[in-house]
Amino acid sequence: MGEFGLIDRVVERLGTSPSVLLGPGDDAAVVLVPDGRVVVTTDVLVEDVHFRLDWSTGYDVGRKAAAANLADVAAMGATGTALLVGLAAPPDLPVSWATDLADGLRDEAARVGAVVVGGDMVTSERIVVSVTALGDLGGRAPVTRAGAQPGDRVVVAGRLGWSAAGLRMLEHGGLPIEALVEAHLRPTPPYEMGPLLADLGATAMCDVSDGLLADLGHLARASGVHVDVESRRFERDALLGKAVRVIGGHPLDYVMTGGEDHALVATVPPGVVLPDGVLRIGLVRAGTGVRVIGWKPTAQGFEHFT
Amino acid sequence: MGEFGLIDRVVERLGTSPSVLLGPGDDAAVVLVPDGRVVVTTDVLVEDVHFRLDWSTGYDVGRKAAAANLADVAAMGATGTALLVGLAAPPDLPVSWATDLADGLRDEAARVGAVVVGGDMVTSERIVVSVTALGDLGGRAPVTRAGAQPGDRVVVAGRLGWSAAGLRMLEHGGLPIEALVEAHLRPTPPYEMGPLLADLGATAMCDVSDGLLADLGHLARASGVHVDVESRRFERDALLGKAVRVIGGHPLDYVMTGGEDHALVATVPPGVVLPDGVLRIGLVRAGTGVRVIGWKPTAQGFEHFT
Repeated sequence: MGEFGLIDRVVERLGTSPSVLLGPGDDAAVVLVPDGRVVVTTDVLVEDVHFRLDWSTGYDVGRKAAAANLADVAAMGATGTALLVGLAAPPDLPVSWATDLADGLRDEAARVGAVVVGGDMVTSERIVVSVTALGDLGGRAPVTRAGAQPGDRVVVAGRLGWSAAGLRMLEHGGLPIEALVEAHLRPTPPYEMGPLLADLGATAMCDVSDGLLADLGHLARASGVHVDVESRRFERDALLGKAVRVIGGHPLDYVMTGGEDHALVATVPPGVVLPDGVLRIGLVRAGTGVRVIGWKPTAQGFEHFT
Repeated sequence: MGEFGLIDRVVERLGTSPSVLLGPGDDAAVVLVPDGRVVVTTDVLVEDVHFRLDWSTGYDVGRKAAAANLADVAAMGATGTALLVGLAAPPDLPVSWATDLADGLRDEAARVGAVVVGGDMVTSERIVVSVTALGDLGGRAPVTRAGAQPGDRVVVAGRLGWSAAGLRMLEHGGLPIEALVEAHLRPTPPYEMGPLLADLGATAMCDVSDGLLADLGHLARASGVHVDVESRRFERDALLGKAVRVIGGHPLDYVMTGGEDHALVATVPPGVVLPDGVLRIGLVRAGTGVRVIGWKPTAQGFEHFT
């Protein structure tokens, strides 16, 4: 099957939406942007760096690549509308892997009402999946990383540490805890919380892709503030507690430094009533850097996640 | 130098524009879309497939990757506004190669007033450069490949065959003709002609990336028409004439089948006065397929370009 045959097979699996004026098949796609401003971000996933073919199906990689980008869009306070995908892959890649990838992208995009509107397919030795997401602010001001103010509360929506613990379990080779492995292979960012936190007045926000402390470090630096994380705020995570008996460390090691869950961390002014699913975890102060109160990382091995 | 150090070095080389509300460094960029519709396209370039490190500098690859995408935007009748770049590269990639790439992207984007607004950098064995371009229609209807009507004239803007002849000269190993090699390494699409042809009433348009006949084939299929290309319309190309004495074939072989010059081919209704730089090359008729009047491909070796 040539390049164009494969493209046809992939395109026929993709849906459409009222936002898409022109979908795949022309020189470019045309997408409605009623807001007059478009949010746009791109992420690249590389075989054996970001995913392994013996752990992830094409469907998993599609879900994960879409999730990483749509979480970035949500972290601006926006809602994803469209994805573009570049696939570089060996000529002997099974057609089913590419169509599974398309299904994964489509299904994850559908969680926010977005669709795949275009892409490119080329040859390479290893699989590289590059996804670009567009998003709509719906009239909101974008929430950057730079607006946190002393006195703001630090809040988080979504899971923390599950993806890293799931990866460690896969690497460990023992009997894995399925929910954690799934969280690594197919993270489920809390997309709807991005616009919701923006509407509640979030002063800064970012998605947790590098790890909570690392990403709060980016936020603190961009905002010119200090962040205190209060470890007592985190409820005991039963699954992580079970996992560390196999993979070592303390549950909070994974919560604090595990990346790729694509939770959303934000700062909100004092007095904001937090909706269900949003946990207060700390406080913004004058100064620089991030401090965790009540936790010291287990001796070794966690730089890996930061 | 870690990932973030390299990103800082790259970002500091990029410019900005009034269209960019938020540039690199946050979860996503925010770009103005006054038209309310955004044109978007993506292309992936792979080391040793689309470029060779012994022939192309990082700067060349940046120019070429930007050009391929911005030409797709122009082919819709739009003007590029923003680029995003994903770079997958070996850890030992010289920093200068990445900064040269950024310079090339910046300079090519500047030809249309676009800027680089975001990206991602990851590790891989071979270099993969994935670029996404956004564009603005400025109130125009997008010109797809599907609107050609019997009776329309087929017109072209930009060079044809130079990139393919330049590539053949590089492969041949003899003393190359510099202008043709440059056309291959750093194509110069006639961006401004995209919106201009749209304003003149172009009924269909696409960029010539696969080769004139191949891309006219896509246009004919999408429009449900037949296209006659009249070889007598093409002026004798002195440089191609000189080149074929070394690399073989006939100049028209390169003109008809050479890709990657990113010329624009369009169909316009009869009676349109063509501006300077736009050449009439054929006629749209009822039927299917593409026929060339007055040319037969030289015996072998040109499938490579189709």
